[in-house]
Amino acid sequence: MQKNYMSLLVIGSVAFDAIETPFGKTDKIIGGAATYICLSASYFTRDIGLVAVVGEDFPQEYIGILEQKGVDIGGLQVKQGEKSFFWSGRYFNDMNSRETLVTELNVLGTFDPVVPSNLDQPDFLMLGNLAPSVQSTVIGRLAKRPKLIVMDTMNFWMDIALDDLKNTLKMVDVLTINDEEARQLSGEYSLVKAARKIRAMGPKYLIIKKGEHGAILFYNDEVFYCPAMLLEEVFDPTGAGDTFAGGFIGYLAKTGDISFDNMKRAIYYGSALASFCVEKFGTENILDIDPKALIERVAKFKALSHVELID
Amino acid sequence: MQKNYMSLLVIGSVAFDAIETPFGKTDKIIGGAATYICLSASYFTRDIGLVAVVGEDFPQEYIGILEQKGVDIGGLQVKQGEKSFFWSGRYFNDMNSRETLVTELNVLGTFDPVVPSNLDQPDFLMLGNLAPSVQSTVIGRLAKRPKLIVMDTMNFWMDIALDDLKNTLKMVDVLTINDEEARQLSGEYSLVKAARKIRAMGPKYLIIKKGEHGAILFYNDEVFYCPAMLLEEVFDPTGAGDTFAGGFIGYLAKTGDISFDNMKRAIYYGSALASFCVEKFGTENILDIDPKALIERVAKFKALSHVELID
Repeated sequence: MQKNYMSLLVIGSVAFDAIETPFGKTDKIIGGAATYICLSASYFTRDIGLVAVVGEDFPQEYIGILEQKGVDIGGLQVKQGEKSFFWSGRYFNDMNSRETLVTELNVLGTFDPVVPSNLDQPDFLMLGNLAPSVQSTVIGRLAKRPKLIVMDTMNFWMDIALDDLKNTLKMVDVLTINDEEARQLSGEYSLVKAARKIRAMGPKYLIIKKGEHGAILFYNDEVFYCPAMLLEEVFDPTGAGDTFAGGFIGYLAKTGDISFDNMKRAIYYGSALASFCVEKFGTENILDIDPKALIERVAKFKALSHVELID
Repeated sequence: MQKNYMSLLVIGSVAFDAIETPFGKTDKIIGGAATYICLSASYFTRDIGLVAVVGEDFPQEYIGILEQKGVDIGGLQVKQGEKSFFWSGRYFNDMNSRETLVTELNVLGTFDPVVPSNLDQPDFLMLGNLAPSVQSTVIGRLAKRPKLIVMDTMNFWMDIALDDLKNTLKMVDVLTINDEEARQLSGEYSLVKAARKIRAMGPKYLIIKKGEHGAILFYNDEVFYCPAMLLEEVFDPTGAGDTFAGGFIGYLAKTGDISFDNMKRAIYYGSALASFCVEKFGTENILDIDPKALIERVAKFKALSHVELID
């Protein structure tokens, strides 16, 4: 593998989650898009900067874990007298649908991202799910345009901030959303048609995440369909999409190669990381993955869809 | 490609359908599981026998089309004074859900399959969707056990004839069902667990059809996940599963190779045929596929999920 270890800046929520699944429930545990993204990307590169905000309730010990993974936390604001973002949700039997029980924005409600000068020229930028106006603000506060900007978002922003979302879309290279969101954003049921419309909104690359059904990358007339790892059990899907995104951009940052072929590989690695994530609650299973286990998972994953046509 | 052209016997409905989709509606058109299976298999082998029943209303002209495709219709009973099986259904916007408007069993209600002596020693047997007791009757009426028996079924028989279904399952090698049916039959949500339970019921091989999300083949500890072809538009999904099954077993019959690796290839060809089927109403688009177009579709399909990992 080519190794360039380009710098990666991550923005997103660092938060508390409380999760209920058919397998059990958690108290408040560490969550947030940027947390999953940083942990996942750290398997590929240690040159990671974080821009986020937490309240004084956030455990210093967990910030220490991120630092040990090579994350520069100079852009992590800690708001005294305030509380961290908190989300609580319940997954149903099929694990593809969930209901939100509690959303407390807290510090996220007034988040004004600050990008320290040592982090303002990243080669790669990952915009984790946040208000699209905050995502575009971060782009505006960089000293130069990154080599690649990847944006994640969700239906919530399509409902309440569509104009902001469309504005931010014009500024990014890769968008990651799920299939229902792609349909909502484009007004097209066919994912082929949806991808064409969304790519016309700005991002040259579109990754449609289909959970247990895999992920599809669209770019010009090229398409790549990566199946999902088959697991005995999906224990908790929280953070799977962020873990995917972190592995995807982390692999690209490590290799410094943003060709379509390398993006395919990055999708494999992102999917492999996500398959670890969903095997336990929260971030537990991606805190310390054995590098050998990761290589084995990728190989097994590759074998899953390997076919030799002989005609 | 190795060519053995082993003999294939197909049993299933030959019928009329009336279909409504968001794109339009048809009058009574030719349908039925065995019709789709025979047409699809005919792209690989011309040594096909058909065991089925129709009423006197069934057009002789369409029977002629099957004969032109190399189908021996010696086992096709034509019941004078009776009507052919008729199904009418409406698909919703997502094309994954449908409602049945009319089911008229007619000749199928008393179907007693007759296997002519020149067809009773097939190398391959395809049991299209029918009452499981009729499927097992056909197996019992063969002069020798085929090399491979593939069975298709559906949730309807799980609801009303589960014991018969379980009895037939013990006699077959490959079962094809969709993901919801696999969950219903096994009582397991996880497809990995569902596959283990269903394979313990009899079939060594299980193919779970996931429509637009592809198909998964399970055998011992091996798994193969074949994505679905991405189409601009799914026009009419009727017969897609039968077309898949026909291409699958037709390819196996042509090559005479029932190894796991060859089954993977057979799934590719079956999926490619199914992708043609759904592009127009009924059997229209699989009546006369240009061989070059089929090769191109398979190549495009293979490219869709091709990745070179370089680590």
